[in-house]
Formats: sequence, structure tokens, C-alpha cells
Amino acid sequence: MQAYSVIGKRIPRLEGIAKATGEARFTDDLTLPRMLYGKILRSPHAHARILSIDISGALRLPGVKAVITGKDVTGKPYGVYLRTSEQYPLAKDRVRYIGDEVAAVAATDEDTAEEALSLIRVEYEPLPAVFDAYEAMKPGAPRIHEAEGNIAGRTAKTVGDVERGFSEADYVREDSFKMERQAHGPLEPHSALASSDSSGRVALWTSNMSPFTKQLLLAKTLNKPLSDVRIRQSYVGGAFGGKSELFSLDFCASLLSLKTGRPVKINYSREEVFAATRHKFPMDIYLKTGVKKDGSLLAREARVLGRAGGYASTGIMAVFIACTSLFDTYKYPNLRLEGACVYTNLPICGALRGHGSTQARFADESQMNIIAEELGLDPVEFRLKNAIRKGDSHPLNGKVITSCGLSECIEKATESSKWKEKRGKESGLQTSEPRLAGVGMACTTGYTAVHISKLSSSAAFIKFNEDGGVNLLTGAIENGQGTETMLAQIAAEELGLRAEDVVVIDGDTRDTPLDVGSFTMALTFVTGNAVKLAAADAKKQVMQIASAMMEAPASQLEARNGKIFIKSRPEKGLSFAEVVRTGLIKGTPILGKGYFNPDSEFLDVYKGEGKWVGAYSFSAEVAEVEVDRETGQVKVSGSTFAQDCGRAINPMDVEGQIEGGTTLTHALSLREDFFWEQGKLLNPSFLDYAMPTSLDVAVVRPIIVEDPHPQGPFGAKETGESSAHTGAAAIANAIYHAAGVRIKEAPITPQAVLQALREKETGFRT
Amino acid sequence: MQAYSVIGKRIPRLEGIAKATGEARFTDDLTLPRMLYGKILRSPHAHARILSIDISGALRLPGVKAVITGKDVTGKPYGVYLRTSEQYPLAKDRVRYIGDEVAAVAATDEDTAEEALSLIRVEYEPLPAVFDAYEAMKPGAPRIHEAEGNIAGRTAKTVGDVERGFSEADYVREDSFKMERQAHGPLEPHSALASSDSSGRVALWTSNMSPFTKQLLLAKTLNKPLSDVRIRQSYVGGAFGGKSELFSLDFCASLLSLKTGRPVKINYSREEVFAATRHKFPMDIYLKTGVKKDGSLLAREARVLGRAGGYASTGIMAVFIACTSLFDTYKYPNLRLEGACVYTNLPICGALRGHGSTQARFADESQMNIIAEELGLDPVEFRLKNAIRKGDSHPLNGKVITSCGLSECIEKATESSKWKEKRGKESGLQTSEPRLAGVGMACTTGYTAVHISKLSSSAAFIKFNEDGGVNLLTGAIENGQGTETMLAQIAAEELGLRAEDVVVIDGDTRDTPLDVGSFTMALTFVTGNAVKLAAADAKKQVMQIASAMMEAPASQLEARNGKIFIKSRPEKGLSFAEVVRTGLIKGTPILGKGYFNPDSEFLDVYKGEGKWVGAYSFSAEVAEVEVDRETGQVKVSGSTFAQDCGRAINPMDVEGQIEGGTTLTHALSLREDFFWEQGKLLNPSFLDYAMPTSLDVAVVRPIIVEDPHPQGPFGAKETGESSAHTGAAAIANAIYHAAGVRIKEAPITPQAVLQALREKETGFRT
Repeated sequence: MQAYSVIGKRIPRLEGIAKATGEARFTDDLTLPRMLYGKILRSPHAHARILSIDISGALRLPGVKAVITGKDVTGKPYGVYLRTSEQYPLAKDRVRYIGDEVAAVAATDEDTAEEALSLIRVEYEPLPAVFDAYEAMKPGAPRIHEAEGNIAGRTAKTVGDVERGFSEADYVREDSFKMERQAHGPLEPHSALASSDSSGRVALWTSNMSPFTKQLLLAKTLNKPLSDVRIRQSYVGGAFGGKSELFSLDFCASLLSLKTGRPVKINYSREEVFAATRHKFPMDIYLKTGVKKDGSLLAREARVLGRAGGYASTGIMAVFIACTSLFDTYKYPNLRLEGACVYTNLPICGALRGHGSTQARFADESQMNIIAEELGLDPVEFRLKNAIRKGDSHPLNGKVITSCGLSECIEKATESSKWKEKRGKESGLQTSEPRLAGVGMACTTGYTAVHISKLSSSAAFIKFNEDGGVNLLTGAIENGQGTETMLAQIAAEELGLRAEDVVVIDGDTRDTPLDVGSFTMALTFVTGNAVKLAAADAKKQVMQIASAMMEAPASQLEARNGKIFIKSRPEKGLSFAEVVRTGLIKGTPILGKGYFNPDSEFLDVYKGEGKWVGAYSFSAEVAEVEVDRETGQVKVSGSTFAQDCGRAINPMDVEGQIEGGTTLTHALSLREDFFWEQGKLLNPSFLDYAMPTSLDVAVVRPIIVEDPHPQGPFGAKETGESSAHTGAAAIANAIYHAAGVRIKEAPITPQAVLQALREKETGFRT
Repeated sequence: MQAYSVIGKRIPRLEGIAKATGEARFTDDLTLPRMLYGKILRSPHAHARILSIDISGALRLPGVKAVITGKDVTGKPYGVYLRTSEQYPLAKDRVRYIGDEVAAVAATDEDTAEEALSLIRVEYEPLPAVFDAYEAMKPGAPRIHEAEGNIAGRTAKTVGDVERGFSEADYVREDSFKMERQAHGPLEPHSALASSDSSGRVALWTSNMSPFTKQLLLAKTLNKPLSDVRIRQSYVGGAFGGKSELFSLDFCASLLSLKTGRPVKINYSREEVFAATRHKFPMDIYLKTGVKKDGSLLAREARVLGRAGGYASTGIMAVFIACTSLFDTYKYPNLRLEGACVYTNLPICGALRGHGSTQARFADESQMNIIAEELGLDPVEFRLKNAIRKGDSHPLNGKVITSCGLSECIEKATESSKWKEKRGKESGLQTSEPRLAGVGMACTTGYTAVHISKLSSSAAFIKFNEDGGVNLLTGAIENGQGTETMLAQIAAEELGLRAEDVVVIDGDTRDTPLDVGSFTMALTFVTGNAVKLAAADAKKQVMQIASAMMEAPASQLEARNGKIFIKSRPEKGLSFAEVVRTGLIKGTPILGKGYFNPDSEFLDVYKGEGKWVGAYSFSAEVAEVEVDRETGQVKVSGSTFAQDCGRAINPMDVEGQIEGGTTLTHALSLREDFFWEQGKLLNPSFLDYAMPTSLDVAVVRPIIVEDPHPQGPFGAKETGESSAHTGAAAIANAIYHAAGVRIKEAPITPQAVLQALREKETGFRT
């Protein structure tokens, strides 16, 4: 393995001190002179027609500077896909969920803005609402949009001959699984601060995951050219997929600022974040799987129903990702998938870490264990037998998998968790032990750089400073996942500098070059490569100057740790400062540029076509649980998670991602849940939506496996997303191991466990 | 002449609306949370040793957060040249002029800071002071620095055989001229706002002319690496050379912020701007010139004494520029120059528009008229006969002059001003007219991109937005001279876009690439070329994509006004947006980079060596005056100024520069003056320092002459600086024409004119 100086080092976050001391200023920490405060009026109806809006009372209130409604939206509606570009930042004529945005005000203080909302008179005509996806699909159900059967989109694909596969199978198994909604729960509630000028330009600081996507959507809805809309760099206090789209506050702050000529800030309350941003898609998954006695998988048929809210958002993609996630961890020669995304009059769902895959992996990995159990196979052997391997082609799109550490992940996770020893133990069910212990495994495939946008590339600029340090300009944004540090390490390694020699400037659409965004698992792969190429471009220029100074061909030179030397004489050499300064004096300031586009194709989510992924990463998790026989309560007592991330640019960061991702899904699997009454969310608060605290979570043991990807920057692939895939099935399988009960609905509630235990022990179902 | 779409167009300033509406935020318009206010304690002595400073009283005052003195300066002293890097931002042990910086405080408000200054006890030992440059050069004079005879630097050069030249001359003329100090008088007083973080990084908004120079000097004095010091983009309310150096407020705001962990703002009062920033160098110039009867110039000997203040600043350069300015408008086969810069205990002098040249051209062009008068030659013919021309080599450095419109400027200025008609009139001296009218001419050579720094190049980045517009990143700064608009025009022309398609991002050392700065007349030539090259780089990429889309070789394509078309079919074509978007989808975002270094050499001011200039520009001014016989008051009734600027990127801007430059020197020539009492400036206010208002200035008729320079961007050379060269001599020559009196000292006071008139009319001198 090549010895790196900066890559693979456990470097603390560049922005760590600022965040730890509180110096980091998030959007809500910013205040501009003459700033106004905005508030948004939301629909109390799950489904209603807007007959009229009277804003005159609000406008008369002293301190109110502007009121806007759907009539003021002159731009186009937005959405993740063209076919479902259906949402206006303020509703035009209809509201589709409780919380849908109806009007917004700007006033001199928050109290006045709040009071002004109460003075807006909206006349609604309530319409029948539908909250259940199956009800929504029935003929005669209320139509939420134009789509027939309220189906926002469908996807379907067949490979091979599924019927023949089933007929040749020794065993065919059918199961249905269900997973409910989850909230992102970022520590920073969404906040937006807009500032405009009299030429009609607007600048927005906002909680976001991609300044360039935000810019595009905001310009579209404001009906302005891109150059009139600037997204400015903000610190973002956690995103997890939940800050990727345009939100009403982005638009309203901008338009209110343009209307008033003053800066306008809008903060969402925690209740608004919970009830009116996005949730993870709840999904129902049916699997029919045919298998040989020896454990060879022959065929699978899968059906995925994604239950969307009042607008589709990323629904079609989530359903497709769930479908594909059912077929690319283990090999299926014959497969058929079908998916649909259905509108309901509930709050909107969108991207959340593990987007579609978490739901699918819960189903697939649960069924894998069920089949192993039925056929008397060792679940680890069963997995290894069918595991996808390097050189295999993806069953849906034929893309060859050029880096695959799945088997190694399985081996390392079982070894490190003492799987055999723990698995060997009998279930304590026959004893009088009050707590039953068990271990369960689940595996997954992660997607690096999902090609869902026509704009899937990143660019980067590098400029050398006179003192030999560099400034890296990138449109990436740091959401807390360590982006800046990782990009600095890539630039430093490529250049031969130290990480601290790199100043990262990011997240501003005006000052930094185009970037793919901190989503679709693209950042390390796409932006990382763009940065690497920009660094290589700059390095070539440095080496040319050094070559002349040292009277040696550039090919004989090497740079490392801030020094440039002749390979054969590493003890001598020049500092970058000396070389760069000489270049400057000769009139050659050093500028590097780079851009990267993965060799992938646009993903057609409807047909499941296109080589739409940059690289695949692989993981295996072993979860250990304790089941309380008396309460049905399940506790995760530990988790071992091995991930092939290609190359860990910063192992500390990869480990942090693994800890975060597994914990997120453990929480979804066991405790986080929403409660509803006629479309109204009953628990939109941290008090009632029981996110775990640090005391509630299991210790996670991360294991890094590295099978470098030929196209990855220094071999790196996705990390962080797929650690959220496996938790639910690993826990369900461990519960089965501990207590012999199989739960197919997540969150796995104590009630469900208790009921299953009772049935198991009495044979009596009530 | 090539037809341009954007170059040569009268485009209003890009930042015009923001400035007109007051939206443009200058440094003092910025406020940061928890911001402190700083004030600086200044020396009341013209020359003294600091024995002790007791800051305890100030520190005890509630609201005072920090007090710093020279002891807190850990970095190196600064100066324009290495040999005179002699100034600390707070004096270490000695003060050298009234106003020298001794200590600084940061407090919660300005009043408290002011009060704290009064509580600092400084014990001084007064030293003998010297205010006259000749006294300072005498043996036994007080030593202000180490330099013997208080001579900060000397320059000398001889070309040809001066003695033989004089001996072969038919006429040899000797004269001495004197020009006094001038203030820049920017509308915006110097202001600095520093913000630091706990990692020791500091960001500074400050009135400046080159963020990168400011960064370098600030890092040096703070003893920090460059990457820890960021200069941020500010609007600057006029500079005229007076905001180019590091000032004590830059350093003190930064260090006080680092010490307190809070933002610190320091504003200079108008009195501080007048008495403790910089003035134009006063100079005494002796000329001995030998000429043939036919008007051929044979030899000249010149001596220039620059009278500096307590620190040398740009003094050596000013003296050298004055010397060279005496020899490169007209040809001299034999020449000898000698210059010296002398310290005095007066406030510091530095760069001011026309730096050295204004002083020299007053002397040279006055003497040219004296000689013409003595020899009975027509002053215009005399000038044209000796004028430097294209193909000539510079007498001092041998650089060939490749673009020269001097003769054309003389012809156009005389024609447009009806010179012959007005000049032909007899002086009214023999009549009883109360006001005597006259016209006078002066010419000059301007320097483009004076190579005084080892860092003489600029770089630029261009990135295309999805909508076909571009963002231009440049380290240039807009001081009010139209930089942003000019650079946008260059980028737009090169790319084939409209100027409004270009967003200019400038003036931030962190985000934008290195720039030479808005001084040394380098910006249009150096940065303009860097921008042009970055645009060409980006265009090449656009054309490659367009070539594939249009199925035509790139060489057959042309871009203009935002459209790309096949040359032979201009009616068809694609928009930039279509091409750029196609590139993005294919994964090729378009990034351009460029840098430019003129083919000049570093100027050795001491030896007068090096081909230190990028290009020469040329001008001729005809001033018309009215002399009031009773009061001696001179009024400029009009001015015609023709300038060869190579190519007017934006003629409106060139005209604005000409109007500003001529007016500045008319004011210096006739009304602006300082008054002193033992080194104390008696008139540091706009009330007492009589800068003209718009009602006081003459109408200027600008004439643009274009002899494109082969290396200039679209042929452009310097403009704006040399319009400040000619006013004093043109006025003095016009006064002579009007009243027959020759005044050799500027400002030309009514007293001097009255005395000369009396002598002229009575033959009696008193």
C-alpha cells in the first residue's frame, strides 16, 4: 500500500475549535442592521381549497412591513423531479397537509410577526382528506394532485425469468415488512436570513446541504436569473438529508426582503421543523424469494410502496432506491421489482440518511435470516455464499463492481464481535432469565454519487499564497460531517503539503465553483476528485518552477510535508514558500483548477435504468440486544459495524459517521415514532418524539475495511449513509436470536415484542 | 480597427446604484456583535524619546478592554523599501513627528476610548527637531534615523556626455522650482474593523488599495503567517494613493481584537487623516538645460530634493519618478540626474496621484516655455520637435516605446482648445483690463505598471454559471475608479458576453486570487490582462462544447453578445446558457484561470536601472486662466486634456479619471496648502485646507487618443494618474501668457502673482 502523509491520518476537524468555543456563527447567530423577522402562516386543514385571503388586518398592525401569499409567487413550482414539480413555496389555491404554507409576514420583531399571522383571514373550503396510502389508491379517493390513484410515480423492472426461478427453487418464502416515518432532528432548526439590494439581487444565508441546488430552486421560484440569487456560506447544525430541498422559509425570507428592501430572518420553531419540513418515507415491502436447499438464491419478486405526504418530494427516488437495495447485496439471477409512491394528506417526506435503503435492508436482511432459519443454514455462511463480489455486474444496470469488501466486512464484523461464541449460545427462552440476550447480523450495499441530477459534477479552485500555503475554493458545504477537513486532506496529500497549510473556502455560490452538494453520497467521490485534480494542476506548476530552481527534471522531484526535494536526495530540498515566491517574482502565480464528473449515467427512476452510481460501498453490522421479558423492551447493548469505504481519508471521521448512522437507525428501529390524529402530528417536540440521548445509545465499534476504488480520490467511496441501512434488521435478527420472535414492523415496539413473546410461549394469539 | 461589442462602450458603473442609494457599505457602515471601539494616542512632540508609558490608569477605567503600546508589537517594522523598513505601527522608543502613534485602546464606546487615552501617562524626553530639509542635511543636525545627513536615499544616473552637450549648446538655461505638500482628501476617512477568532486568525475590513499588500504588511507586523490574516472586501471611498500603505489603525484594530477576542473598529477623525496618514512629497527641482537655436535639446542636468517627513515611505521612489519624469517626454541625448530624499520631523509623505511626476512636470514644462520664449520659438512647435515618438528608446532604461500618441495629444489639445486663436492674442497687460486671460500648455508621459514590488503580477478566476453568466474572481479592489466595470467589460468582450453577464467578486485575500493592487498604474494593464487570459481559457472550453453541439470546428465559431454562432451563419446560433448547461450535464463545468506579469524588470530606484515599466501613456493639457490684476487671484477658466491611454475600455470612465486628475492638480497649483507651527499642522480640516468644491473647479474637456499598446488588454494603458501631471505647468505657462509673470513655486499664491505683477509693471522688487 502506498504510504500517505495526510490521507488516513486522524486529523481533528478544522472547524472544531470554532464550533467548540461557540465562535462558529450559524444562520440564526447572524444579525443585520434594520433586520426584520418573518413568520409563516400554515394550514390548519389537512386538505382544503383556499377561497380567499384577507391580509388587510395584518398590514394595519404597527410594525408589520409586508405580507405575502401564494399570489406573490411569480416563479415556477419546484420539486425533485420534473414530473412532480408541484409545490409552491406558498400554496396557490389548495393546501394538502396540516402545516402547508399559506402566507408570510415580515415585521420589526417576532412577537409582532406572530400577532400579524393571527390577523390574516383565510377562508378555506375543507376537502375530504386521506391519510392511509391504500385508501388513497382506491377508486373514488380524494385526489390530492392530478395523478390517478394518487400515485405520484411508479417504477418497475424485470431481469431474467422470475417464474422459472421460483419453479426451480426448493423453497419459496413470502414476507411483508413495514417501516414508519422518522425525523431528522437536527440540533439547528432551519433558519434563513435574506438580504437584498435595490437592483433586485438577493443573498441568502440558510441551513442547507448544497448552496448550488438551493440557488437553482430559489431562482426558479423567485423567477430570477441565477446571478441575482446568491447563497452565502453558513455553518449548518446537522442536516441528515433534511436540509436539501427548498423550504418555504428560504423563499419567504427572500421575497419579503425584496419587498421591504430590508434584511429578513425566519427561524422555524422546533414544532415547524418536526411537522413541516420532511420525514423519512414510511414504506411497505413485500418480498417473495426462491432459494435452493444449498442456499443459492434463484429468484426474487419485490414490491415497494412508499407512503408520501402531500407532495412527492424525493418519493420516487426513495422507492427506486429501496427496490434496487433489495437486489445488490446478494446475487439474484432472476428478479422483478415494482414500486409506487402514493400521496396522502400528511406532512411531506423526503431524503433522510439511508433514504429507501434502510427500509429495504430491514426487509431483505430479516428475510435472509428467516430463510436461513427455515433451511437450517448458518446465516453468515448463507450471506457469504450469495454475497456480491468484485467483478460482478450490478443486476439492474450492469455496472461492473470494481471494488467490493463485503465478504471482508462480514468476516471482520463477526470476528470482532465474537459472533460465533455469542451466536452459539442457546436462547434463554427456556430459562427463567428476566433478560434475553441475542446477536443479529445485517449487511448492505451503499451508493456513492447517485446520479439523480443533470448537474452531477463538482469543480474546485486552488490558489497558492506567498507563504506556500493554499486556499481551496469549493462549493461544498460542511454540515457537520467533516467535509472541510477531508477536502483539506485530499488537497494537502496531492500537493505534498500538511493539512494545516490548506484554508478551505466553501459554500458560497458567488465565490466558489459549482458543487454537486452534500447529498447523494457524492461529496467525497465527486468533490474530492475535483479537489484532487485542482491540486494536481497546481502542483504541476509548482514542480515546473522547482525543477528550474533545483536544476532537476520535474519527474525526479517529490513533495511531501511542505518540502520539495529530489527523490534521491530527500534530506535536501526547498520549501513551498521558496518555490511559490520565486514563481511570483517571475510572474507565475500558481492557480489550480479541477472538475470531476463520475463515469455514471443519469438515473431514470421510473424505468430503473442507467449506470447511475459512481461506486458501491459495503458494510456488515452485528447488533447485540437484550430483551426484557417482562416489558418487551429491547435494548441494543452493542454494535459492531464494518464498512468498506474504499479509503478512509480521515479514519476518525469515518468512525464518527459510522457511530452516527448506526445510532440513527437503532433509534428508528426501537423508539422514535410519530403519533397522529386526523393528519395532525401529536408529538412535534423533542420531549414527545423520543430521540435517544447519549445515555440511551449503544457503544458502536466501527471497523474500517479498505478496498480502494479505482476512480475514488485515493480510492475513497461513500461513508456515513450506509451505516444507517442495517440497524433495524440486525436488531430484529438479534431479537429473534434472543427470544425466538420475528418482528416485521419498525419501530419494534415493546407492545409488539411482548405480544409475540406471549404467542411464542403460549401458542395463543390475541 | 477591430469592432468591439463591449470594449469602448460607455457603460455606467456596476456598483453605481449601490453607491447612489447608500446601500454600498463602507467599512464604517459595518457593525459586528460585541464590537469594541479603538482610539490611538499620538505624540504631541515633533521629536522625542519615550522614557516610559503608564497604562494602568487607562486600564482601570470601566469599559476599557485593552491597551497596547509599542511593546506589544512583536513583528517587524514596515516600509515600502527594505532599506527604509523603519516604521512600527506603534512607536517603540522614539516619536518622529507630531501625530506619531504611541498607544491604542479598545473600549466599549468611543467616548470611553477617548477618555482612556487621556489616562495614559507617557514620559517623553523632547529632542531637538528639524523641519527644513536643508537644515536637516547640515552636519550636526538632529538625526531622525540612523541615516547620515538625514538622507533616506539617493539616486543618480548619467547618460551620454552632459558637459559636451552644454558646450555644444547655443543656449543654456538654469531654473529652480518648488512644489509643496498636498492632501489626498478622500471623502471616506480611514476606517478599519478587525475580527479575530480563538485560533489566532484575524480578518480586517479596511480602507485600502490592495488587499494583498495590506495582508503582507499586517502579517509582517503582527508576526503571523499569511493564512492567519485575511483582508476582506470593503467599499473604499476614494484613495488617490493615500490608502496604499499599512496604517496604525489596521494594526491596532487587529491586535486589539486578538487581545480582547472581540471585533474592534477604529475610525480616523478627519484631523488624523490630514495630520497622520500621508501627504504628497514636496520637492525642490533644479534644471540646467542646453539647447540649440533651432530648438533641439542637447543636454540636461537635474537635481531633485524630496522633502520627506519622519519616515521615508515611498520617498525614494517619488524622487526617482520625478527624476525620470524630467527626461522621457522630450528626447535628451545627454543627461545627468541626481536625487535625494531627506527626513524632517514633519508628518509622513507618501504616494499621491502624480507621485513625483506632478512635481517634475511643473519644472520641466515651465522651463520648456521659458526656453521657447527666450529663443523666440513657438512652444507647441518646440515641444513637437523634441517629443518622444514610437520606436524611440527610453533614455534611462532603453525600453523601446511601442505605443506613443504624444504628438497626436498635442495636436488634438491645441486644436480643440483653439490654442492658436487664443495664444495669438496679445497679453492684456498694456491695457486697463481688470482680468487678464491666457492659455498655457504642458505635456507628460505616464507610467503603466511601475514594477516596484517583487510581486508584480495578477491572477484571475472565471467560473460559468448554469445560466450562461460568469463570476469573475479577482483580487483587485474598487476604490472609485471604475475597476469592477472595466474588468467586467474585458471579461465580457473576450468571452462574447454582455457586461451585465459578469458578476465581479473582488478584494478579498481569502476568496480571490493574487492581485498587483490598485496602484503603480498597474491595474488595467496587469489585472486586465489576467482577466482577459482567464476569459480566453474559459472561452476555449465553451467553444469546445459548442463545437461538438454545432458540429463545426471551434475555429469557425464566434461568440458575441451572449450568443455563439458559426461565423458564416450569424443569424443562427446557441446561447451561452445552452452550451454551458450541456457542458455541465457532460460533467465539464467551465472554469477559467489566467495570470499576467508584464515583461518589465524590477525598478532599482537607487541606480535608476531596470526596464521597470509596462507601458508609457502620453498626454497634453491646455489650461486657460484669468488673472485678477487687483488681487493676484488666478482662476482656471477651462482645461483641455488629451490623453493617449492606448484603448479606452470605458470612455466614460477615462473621462472621469481625466476630470478628477486635472482638477486635483489645479487645486494643488492654486489653492491647497498646509500651514505649520514648529511641526504642528495648523489646518487639518476641510474648512481650513481649502479643497475646491464642484463650484470652484474648471470645466475640463477630455479628449481620448488611442494608440493601442501591443501588450495592453485590447491595447489599454494607464489612465488617471498622468492627468494629474500637467496642471501646475499649464497654469503657470498660462499665467505667463496672460500677465507676463513667471511663478516657479506651487501653490501659486495670489501674493506671489501680485508681487510679480508689481515687479513686472514697476521693475521694482520689494
